Amino acid sequence: MKRMIDNRRFVLILTVLTVFWVATSFSLIGGQETSQPVAESELTVAGAESALVDSTEPVDANQGHNETSGEVDDGAGHGSKEVSEVLLGLIVILLAAKVGGDLVERINQPAVLGELMIGMIIGNLYLVGIDIFEPFKHSATLEVLAELGVIILLFEVGLESTIGEMLKVGMVSFAVATFGVVVPFFLGWGVGLWFLPNESTYVHVFIGATLTATSVGITARVLQDIGKSKIREAKIILGAAVIDDIMGLIILAVVSAIIAAANAGGSLDSGAILFIVFKAVGFVVAALFLGKALSPVIFKIGSKLHGKGVLLSLALLVCFTLSFLADLIGLAAIVGAFSAGLILESVHFKVFRERGEREVEELIAPIATFLVPIFFVRMGMLVKLETFVQVDILLFAGVMTIVAIIGKQACSLAVLQKGINRVAIGLGMVPRGEVGLIFAGIGAKLMLDGHPVVSDSTFSAIVIMVIVTTMVTPPFLKWSLLKGEKKAA
Amino acid sequence: MKRMIDNRRFVLILTVLTVFWVATSFSLIGGQETSQPVAESELTVAGAESALVDSTEPVDANQGHNETSGEVDDGAGHGSKEVSEVLLGLIVILLAAKVGGDLVERINQPAVLGELMIGMIIGNLYLVGIDIFEPFKHSATLEVLAELGVIILLFEVGLESTIGEMLKVGMVSFAVATFGVVVPFFLGWGVGLWFLPNESTYVHVFIGATLTATSVGITARVLQDIGKSKIREAKIILGAAVIDDIMGLIILAVVSAIIAAANAGGSLDSGAILFIVFKAVGFVVAALFLGKALSPVIFKIGSKLHGKGVLLSLALLVCFTLSFLADLIGLAAIVGAFSAGLILESVHFKVFRERGEREVEELIAPIATFLVPIFFVRMGMLVKLETFVQVDILLFAGVMTIVAIIGKQACSLAVLQKGINRVAIGLGMVPRGEVGLIFAGIGAKLMLDGHPVVSDSTFSAIVIMVIVTTMVTPPFLKWSLLKGEKKAA
Repeated sequence: MKRMIDNRRFVLILTVLTVFWVATSFSLIGGQETSQPVAESELTVAGAESALVDSTEPVDANQGHNETSGEVDDGAGHGSKEVSEVLLGLIVILLAAKVGGDLVERINQPAVLGELMIGMIIGNLYLVGIDIFEPFKHSATLEVLAELGVIILLFEVGLESTIGEMLKVGMVSFAVATFGVVVPFFLGWGVGLWFLPNESTYVHVFIGATLTATSVGITARVLQDIGKSKIREAKIILGAAVIDDIMGLIILAVVSAIIAAANAGGSLDSGAILFIVFKAVGFVVAALFLGKALSPVIFKIGSKLHGKGVLLSLALLVCFTLSFLADLIGLAAIVGAFSAGLILESVHFKVFRERGEREVEELIAPIATFLVPIFFVRMGMLVKLETFVQVDILLFAGVMTIVAIIGKQACSLAVLQKGINRVAIGLGMVPRGEVGLIFAGIGAKLMLDGHPVVSDSTFSAIVIMVIVTTMVTPPFLKWSLLKGEKKAA
Repeated sequence: MKRMIDNRRFVLILTVLTVFWVATSFSLIGGQETSQPVAESELTVAGAESALVDSTEPVDANQGHNETSGEVDDGAGHGSKEVSEVLLGLIVILLAAKVGGDLVERINQPAVLGELMIGMIIGNLYLVGIDIFEPFKHSATLEVLAELGVIILLFEVGLESTIGEMLKVGMVSFAVATFGVVVPFFLGWGVGLWFLPNESTYVHVFIGATLTATSVGITARVLQDIGKSKIREAKIILGAAVIDDIMGLIILAVVSAIIAAANAGGSLDSGAILFIVFKAVGFVVAALFLGKALSPVIFKIGSKLHGKGVLLSLALLVCFTLSFLADLIGLAAIVGAFSAGLILESVHFKVFRERGEREVEELIAPIATFLVPIFFVRMGMLVKLETFVQVDILLFAGVMTIVAIIGKQACSLAVLQKGINRVAIGLGMVPRGEVGLIFAGIGAKLMLDGHPVVSDSTFSAIVIMVIVTTMVTPPFLKWSLLKGEKKAA
């Protein structure tokens, strides 16, 4: 009975969204004289994502919506004006995030989807004439807060594992992770090549990179819900997920660095590319080793500091420092944040625990609650729903989704032992969730030949792919595991 | 023995600071050909505090240190550049705050002084040629984060009391608070008039307003340390402090609003001023009444939301909304934040507590640890140490400090009962701590006739006053209470 109700709500929400899409597309089509074919390179997310004003407009310091320009121009103490705009943005986003999260959690979907989708609604209300939310898309401060949010998120993800656990994960998990990274990468590259033939290879490669990540939180929750978090398949999946995270992040870092270098100085030879790979791997390895060695020292010294909030401040310092260093050498800041989380283990905090301080994860959680939704709601706001009504983009999204599912199903080929439910493992690795969105966001800001690597339409396709892979996994995974159980019995 | 060591360290730190001041002043004097007399209206904190560039410089979008202009100009995806600058700023500030806090806590002073003073050191290293910290003074994002920090701080302060407690505080506390607000206000006005005769009356009034606030956290800690937090004097002080906070904030709001209105449209008649007073008092009363009535409803609805982080998000929403509204009607955002804290009581969170969520204060604490130090370290960075070597400013600071102490001592006159240690009560109300600094910061951003209400030199004087009143209170208060004890025995 309960499952029927869940499905009904699921269908209800899908229907509401479809109606919204249909209504919007009719108004758009009605408003256009001829349908313009999509020229990928023309649609950019850059205008909203990476600059305070569209890069094609001349810099006009008097532009009303650019509140920081207003501040520069006026010099009349408009710090409070900026703060009140940020306050309003935070109010809208926090409210939206909680409402959105609530709605989807009732249908057993992760809150991130709710935050994303409600952001999509808010960000596209201009299509029906409601413009009040537009300034939030361009706020530089909200963008920085969103970036801090994603750094904190990856830090939290890293905190959940330790280096030791990672090394002990076993060959099966390692193989599953590797297959789950390599196959989607090349399939994604292929899809990019197929649908965006006019774009540079780098773009295709980036799309491939975007398909490598798994957001295992979703899978973990499903396993927990059906009480199967201790079975062998679960352990393999969860072990693979950590390796998968590192691999995906390294690939992202390498691809981003290559694109950035290409952007700065023309094409790269294999020597340069190899150097970048070396840099990325080297950073992660160095961070992990040095961090592991230095952490106990840092926390020992830190424990001698008087005052409250020392533990949290130390943890944030490690996180921010590694994020800054990663960004400094050309990798994505999130690689540093994730490494920082991996390095920190509860053994370091023993002194603080004895003092009565809470665990780092508990201390970080409120900051995450505050900052992380900003990223996903904002990302939803930057999705342009007009792109959803173009058939070629829907096709792109559809193929990408299928490829995303098949690509991770390839993981199951890595499992050679008998008696293990391979299909379940493959399904468990499918959801792209937060990490896919983060990759998309980075791609929307990376510039290549004057326009972003991930255009508006590609961005929309990725968002659709993320939503679908995330939504279909729980029911199918449950079915697969419970069916397997029946088979065994 | 212990007391001797504390004093020795106290003297040591004072000596280090004095040596630093002397060294700096010699280098400054050595560098100048003639000593310029201080023209108050020329020195402004505006350049750093309220605008991204000095308001006297033409807007140049290519200015290197103005990273947001750089972003506008380039449009080449420099969102990550801004984030890395903010990351660096956060790293420096968090580290400085913890080190500074540690050093002063070892001499039993509150961490806020350490954060302030280490900020003063960092922000003035350019005097000895070290320029690397300069960009942080101009970062718009760090400024917004600092503002959010002070909003969270006042929210926390408000959370510590409830409206009920406030109403029950008793006539003695109310009288003590009233004396402790009225007397310093007029004395401060007088000092402003004496030392800044060329400035507008509004400036004098603002200085008066700055002297009204008490930072009772310092006193509370002293009382706790010597085990006297339950005696009658303690109850009177702590009760008075809450009323004092509200009164001080209302006065600040009124004075700021008056200045803002005067800035916009010339001078005001008493009708306009009365309207502003009415607006301020009305806002607080309305917020408290409506808030008290609506809160249970809001949290009841909120408790129906699924997902994690709902309690914290709701609390933040109440805080941000009231802050935004306060700012919207022309009062300081912190008035809204404080009111929000007063409104929220643990009875509202019963449902969440039963669910296993932590108390709001505990959830807010990590966010405060992260954001609040940004405000005080940054404020210290904006203090210009050059002003400390000018005799007239030191005189101004000295008189202001004496007036600050005497003004609050007047509180003791409000105590008519016999057998109560009046001097202790007067001393307990003396520390200006965080709230004095917050007022100074607001004054540095409020513009009047094209320059800030609180100039660089006035800012320095206030900082000195805050540091001295905060540092001298604990020893004297202890002496007074323990002497009183001996007398009674």
